[in-house]
Formats: sequence, structure tokens, C-alpha cells
Amino acid sequence: MAHDDSVQADVLISEVGPRDGLQSVQATMPTEAKFRWIDALVAAGVREIEVASFVPARLLPQMADAAEVVAYAVRQPGVTVMALVPNLRGAEAALRAGAHKLTMPVSASRAHSLANVRKTPEDMVEEVRAIARLRDELAPAVKLEAGISTAFGCTLQGLVPEDEVIRLAAMCVAAGADESGLSDTVGYANPSQVRRLFRRLRSELGSRAGAAHMHNTRGLGLANCLAAWDEGVRTFDSSLGGLGGCPYAPGASGNVVTEDLVFMFEAMGVRTGISMQKIIAARAPLAAGLPGEPLYGMTPDAGLPKGFGPFH
Amino acid sequence: MAHDDSVQADVLISEVGPRDGLQSVQATMPTEAKFRWIDALVAAGVREIEVASFVPARLLPQMADAAEVVAYAVRQPGVTVMALVPNLRGAEAALRAGAHKLTMPVSASRAHSLANVRKTPEDMVEEVRAIARLRDELAPAVKLEAGISTAFGCTLQGLVPEDEVIRLAAMCVAAGADESGLSDTVGYANPSQVRRLFRRLRSELGSRAGAAHMHNTRGLGLANCLAAWDEGVRTFDSSLGGLGGCPYAPGASGNVVTEDLVFMFEAMGVRTGISMQKIIAARAPLAAGLPGEPLYGMTPDAGLPKGFGPFH
Repeated sequence: MAHDDSVQADVLISEVGPRDGLQSVQATMPTEAKFRWIDALVAAGVREIEVASFVPARLLPQMADAAEVVAYAVRQPGVTVMALVPNLRGAEAALRAGAHKLTMPVSASRAHSLANVRKTPEDMVEEVRAIARLRDELAPAVKLEAGISTAFGCTLQGLVPEDEVIRLAAMCVAAGADESGLSDTVGYANPSQVRRLFRRLRSELGSRAGAAHMHNTRGLGLANCLAAWDEGVRTFDSSLGGLGGCPYAPGASGNVVTEDLVFMFEAMGVRTGISMQKIIAARAPLAAGLPGEPLYGMTPDAGLPKGFGPFH
Repeated sequence: MAHDDSVQADVLISEVGPRDGLQSVQATMPTEAKFRWIDALVAAGVREIEVASFVPARLLPQMADAAEVVAYAVRQPGVTVMALVPNLRGAEAALRAGAHKLTMPVSASRAHSLANVRKTPEDMVEEVRAIARLRDELAPAVKLEAGISTAFGCTLQGLVPEDEVIRLAAMCVAAGADESGLSDTVGYANPSQVRRLFRRLRSELGSRAGAAHMHNTRGLGLANCLAAWDEGVRTFDSSLGGLGGCPYAPGASGNVVTEDLVFMFEAMGVRTGISMQKIIAARAPLAAGLPGEPLYGMTPDAGLPKGFGPFH
């Protein structure tokens, strides 16, 4: 089943740690440890988890158990199980494994797209079209999201024209994606740009405007999420312990830290459906599965404010 | 002289490291090292620096050279030299040393005020009144700011009623302060609360609504600054390397990190008047003066985005 709509929540926090986090670290987390981590996330109230990437195991040994992890996760109640698929072949495997939702990265930077997957953005839109067709055949209830990567800039080409980003997002929806979200793949985004781009995305795509996937590379992760929230974005990707997202240096987590993001929203009175105490507790199985790996996040260290809401 | 109004800037970043930072670390920075750090801050374009606290040297040996540091700083061009004064006696010393601006902390939490200075908030307002009178006598051009501390919550009493905060800020202005700012002393603030309180402050005090002094204890420092900016706040306190502000744990800086704050605004197209390259370079004299002290900030590690503006 997909996520439980009976949960009272104003935003959807989409936990990407088991995919984005684990594929960014050297160590491979044992499959059983992934199960325990997913259990803890679900117990905390997380309603969407990106659990795996369907790439060849020789490229990412951390993801060799992708099908097994999806099969486990879909048996947990109330959670939408997402899988990243880089191409049609990966999509077929993910669909056969039973994923509820696929996310396909499409880079708005031509330089990044060619360097990364040796395809142009337009080639990738054709891949989205092929995946959408396959989905229609095999599992029409499955949602397909296009994640427009390098949407806020690129380490190779620098500036990525906003017109290109919006055009590509629209092309992906036209090709059959249910929604297009925007990713700050390299941590270049600033709040003004986030507002501008999500406003345009919403104006172009309406309810098919998707998630904000922000990074914390330069410390602006939460400020950028706030900016996206202000523009009506209601789905946010983040990673427990800030795992993944290409950290540059100790203390410099890549992905937005789930714990701090949940704290920000809950403190604002924006309901996430996630328990602060339990999401902090979910760090234990993560740490147990990746011994020695640094975890980020400031709320877990600082603790909750005195008198913080009864829900928590 | 006070700060140079010919500088093109949209916000004033008020660097508090030499006061708030240095008083929070165990080590005492040698006076000469403070001078070199202040030089580097001024060279980077910082136009306001809180350089010292006028407290008895037996309480804070790090600040024993306060008068000497003020006397040095006021000889630098284009910078407003601030001093924290906890009471009338400190104010007299700061005025005699030649400070351009005094900041007086007044806690909105009765519990915190009594525990910290053994005075009620109302007693502290009377101290503000006495300081304002002395200022009028000795140096009428000097500005006096009341910093309403624990304005967003308190580790002792938890919730601090918003009515109390606004009432106290208004009382300080009525007692002779030129402006009242709001401080998130313990890192409890969230963006909704920041917006609400600064909106009320501005509505109550108009142009006498002062600075936002936010902490990064739970990672929300920049998001809270963004929220304050949205409400029209144009002066922001921060600390180079995130020094000070009671860090709880490694990676958990207390004060908002100047380098990341400047990056956020400059990336948004909001002019700070500060050079990114030079403010990052100002970490060197800070580090040299405090060997072994951890410095925070993510932009210095990550570097500037490719193609980041010509100004920098």
C-alpha cells in the first residue's frame, strides 16, 4: 500500500537515507541492518522512504540487495516505498520488485548529464517516456517522479538557465511523469532562487510540481526548505543523520538532516506526522548498520526545547 | 567614526565574535591577536563589530583588555565599534573607552534574569534608563541598543510569553534605548515565531525595532535569519567561525556563522558589503589567536559555487 492518508500531516518528509545516504558511503550496510533501520523510520511515522537504487551491483555494491529491500519495505504498514531508477532496465527491476513509486533523475545541466550518464537531457526525457509506458503496462498504480537534478547550478557548467530547468520539468511531465521535483544536487541553491524556481514550477505544472530535494553543503539546507515551503512545496527530501549527498568536510553534511527538518516544521506548528523522539531514536539502527560513519544533525545533540509540544 | 554609509549594502552584518565568541571559549586571546582579527574583519568590509564586554576581569578574563580593544577598533576606518555593557558601571567604562554603540542585554525570561544577574526584567529597564542618562551626559552621539535575550524561549522557564517580550522591548525604548533587538539566546526559535515576533516588534517600535541575534543550536540559524529578513529586519548578529553561543557538541555551533550568513545573502543578491573571499580569509587570524579551537561554517569548506558573482 502507499502512505496512510489518515495521518494528520501538513507536509510529507521523504526519507532518502537508505538510497542517497547509503550509496554515498564507502561501507555497505548489511541487508538485515537496512530492515531494522526501515522499521525504525516507519515506527517514527515516516510515510515515504526511498529505499534503494536499481543500478547494476558492480557499480554500486551498496545497492545489490535493492529488490530484497523493496520487497521487505512494502510489507510495512503506511509507507510509500520509492526506488531510484536511472534507466528503463532499472525501472523494470524496481516495478517487478513491487516499488510504489519510482524516481528518475534527469539533469538540467547538459555538461553534468553527459558526464554522468553520457546522455543529453532530451535523451533522458525519452527514457522517462519509455519508463512511463512500461509502468502503464506492468503496474499502472505506481507513481513516477522526475527529479530535475542540478536545477540550481552545476559544478561543471556553473549556472543552469532557469528556463531550461522549467522546460525540462514540463517535458518530463509531458512524457508521462506524474510529477517533476527540483534537486539542488551540488548545494548551490539560495532561498531567493528556490522561491523563484518553485513559483515557476508550480505556475507551469500546478499539482504536478514535485518535491524539494535540497542539500546542506553550504549550510543553507533548512533556509532553502523554508523558502520552498513558502512557495507551497509540501514534499521535502531529507536524510537521517544527513547521510549522503557528497559531504565535503567533517561537519558538512550533504543532504538536509531529517531530524533538524522535522524539528523546524514541528516547531513552526507544521505537522510532519513524525515523532521527534522516535526519529532521533532511528539513528541507533542507522549507526549500528554503519559503524564509524559520522552522523550529522544538531537537534539530536542539543535536545528538544523545554516544554516542546505534547505531541513529541 | 561610525560606519561608512557610502558602502552599498542592503543589510548590516554585525560581527559579535570578538565579544560573544571569545567570552564563550576557555582560552584568552592575546590582545595583539584581537587587533589582527579586527583588522581582517574590517578589511573584509564588516561595518559593525561587537569587540568587547565591559564586565569585571575577574568574571571574564577574556575581556580584561576591553578598553584597549575598543580604543584600537575605533581607529579603524568605516566600522561601528560596539561594546556589551551589563550595567551602568560597564557602560561608563565603555563610554570612556570611546565605543560608538552600547548593547545592553535584558532578559525577557524572569527566571533567566534572576538567575543570571539577580535582577528582574523591570530592574534591568531601570538600568537601561540610567545608562541612557549617562550616555546623554558623556557622549550623546553614542547609540544604545537593548538586546532582549531569551526572546524565543528559555532553558529555565521554557515558554516566554510573546506579550512580555514585546512589552519589555517597548519599555527599553521608552527608557532611552535607541532600539530593541531580539535574541534567541538558547536556540529555541523557529521561523514562524521569528516572523510573528519581529512583525509585532516592528509594528510596536517602527524604526526602533533592532537586530536579529539568532543561534544555530538546532541548525535553524539561517532559516531564522531568512524569516527575519522577510519581516524587514536589516541587521543580523553573527560570529566568524560560529564561535561562541554555547555550542553543545562538535559540529553544533552556537552563533550563526558569519561566513554562511554572508554567503546566503550575497547568493540571494542581497548586498552585505562584505567580500566572501576576505571574510573567509579572516578565519586565519582568528585561528592563529585561538590555537586548537574548533571553527564552524560550511561555505569555507565547500568553497564558492562555480561562477559565483564577480563582486566576490
